[in-house]
Amino acid sequence: MEITQKRPQAAIIIIGNEILSGRTRDENLNFLACNLVEAGVNLAEVRIIADIESAIIDAVNELRGKFDYVFTTGGIGPTHDDITALSIAKAFGVDIIEDTEAIAAMNKFYEGRDDILTEVNRRMANIPEGASLIDNPISGAPGFHIENTYVFAGVPVIMRAMFDSMKHELQGSNPIISETIVTNISEGKIAKELGQVQSEYPQIDIGSYPYFEEGRFGVNIVIRSDDIEYINIVKSKIEKAVSSLGGTILK
Amino acid sequence: MEITQKRPQAAIIIIGNEILSGRTRDENLNFLACNLVEAGVNLAEVRIIADIESAIIDAVNELRGKFDYVFTTGGIGPTHDDITALSIAKAFGVDIIEDTEAIAAMNKFYEGRDDILTEVNRRMANIPEGASLIDNPISGAPGFHIENTYVFAGVPVIMRAMFDSMKHELQGSNPIISETIVTNISEGKIAKELGQVQSEYPQIDIGSYPYFEEGRFGVNIVIRSDDIEYINIVKSKIEKAVSSLGGTILK
Repeated sequence: MEITQKRPQAAIIIIGNEILSGRTRDENLNFLACNLVEAGVNLAEVRIIADIESAIIDAVNELRGKFDYVFTTGGIGPTHDDITALSIAKAFGVDIIEDTEAIAAMNKFYEGRDDILTEVNRRMANIPEGASLIDNPISGAPGFHIENTYVFAGVPVIMRAMFDSMKHELQGSNPIISETIVTNISEGKIAKELGQVQSEYPQIDIGSYPYFEEGRFGVNIVIRSDDIEYINIVKSKIEKAVSSLGGTILK
Repeated sequence: MEITQKRPQAAIIIIGNEILSGRTRDENLNFLACNLVEAGVNLAEVRIIADIESAIIDAVNELRGKFDYVFTTGGIGPTHDDITALSIAKAFGVDIIEDTEAIAAMNKFYEGRDDILTEVNRRMANIPEGASLIDNPISGAPGFHIENTYVFAGVPVIMRAMFDSMKHELQGSNPIISETIVTNISEGKIAKELGQVQSEYPQIDIGSYPYFEEGRFGVNIVIRSDDIEYINIVKSKIEKAVSSLGGTILK
């Protein structure tokens, strides 16, 4: 499991009462998790917090000091409960200012659409001083980044577009590759052998994830590394162990 | 938004590399969030962390001091990557011991099934000293709770059964009720009126969640409180505002 610790490390902060209340299922985490793997960045922690200024400030300040990248989602719209930009400015100890570049981007977007840059929408151009904008081709109002902290919208289609706008900036290592062995053996039967292979190859991350389907348990064994040769060696050892214990490889 | 702050507060810690790597989508958070609302407990924060001992100890110790309840999911199986029980024992500064009650529960469960209490499965009976067991009718090996911290399995069907085994112990307030108004108006157009209603009724939580469907934006307005009368007053005010701005209530 140590291998992932040497890679650039990231945290995600999901700002959203609607997730905590159970009203909405988060759709952003899995997208970001998969894309960070692809970019060679290790996602170390996720926090889901309420739309409360002190909670946002504390989480941002703790995590931006601890990790190479911090991504936030949610709370950058025009309504009273959108307090992310102001909270981020306070976390960094800078003023929040109306950004002329953001106003220009929004005006250009609204041109020819049936929306206008209302006084309320202008609020979305209030950005912490010193931040750079992140392009939003979907609805105009930009995200922004300040130092190592990237601030995205919460609406999934906009968040994805914002991530796509900035992902070339990520300085990742070689992507992590993973292979999954699906078996019908119970976790208890294979645990000892898995532990032995893990000790023998400490540079590989071997995860064991039991599942329960149609009244029976099985286990998904996931092997992760940035080195395909090691993955193949470990995979073959585990497959042999499963067979010798009477289990079947389903996939 | 203040209303939720006076209720019993909970945090969830999801222990799982498989969520952080994007391989698996979490299925436990939404179940717990909805059930905590029903039990009158406010979910204040969620953390998703890696299977790393120091990460588990730090998160548990910070959150158990800050909130009334902490729930963890994942990492209590029999394999080398299941380190939750030991990490929780360290967080509480107690020993981990083989629990005779847990052994008895597992023996009883395995009796007559095609599994046996192997040496490896016995590992799942190692519980922090002083913890009480949480019944697991699905696969035998119990969860546990120590002080305000409840430790569940990560497999969703088992986690749910464990939560159902303990939920009568939760000391909640009146459940929070929520009403949603679905409109085809853009967030920017309704923002000012929503802010006014929120200022007038600070004891009600009004959330505004934009959506994007078939190329058009709309907004879901969610009104939350434990008092249905206030909800109805606020709902009616917002519906009138939407209509007067030329919007339509879709639901």
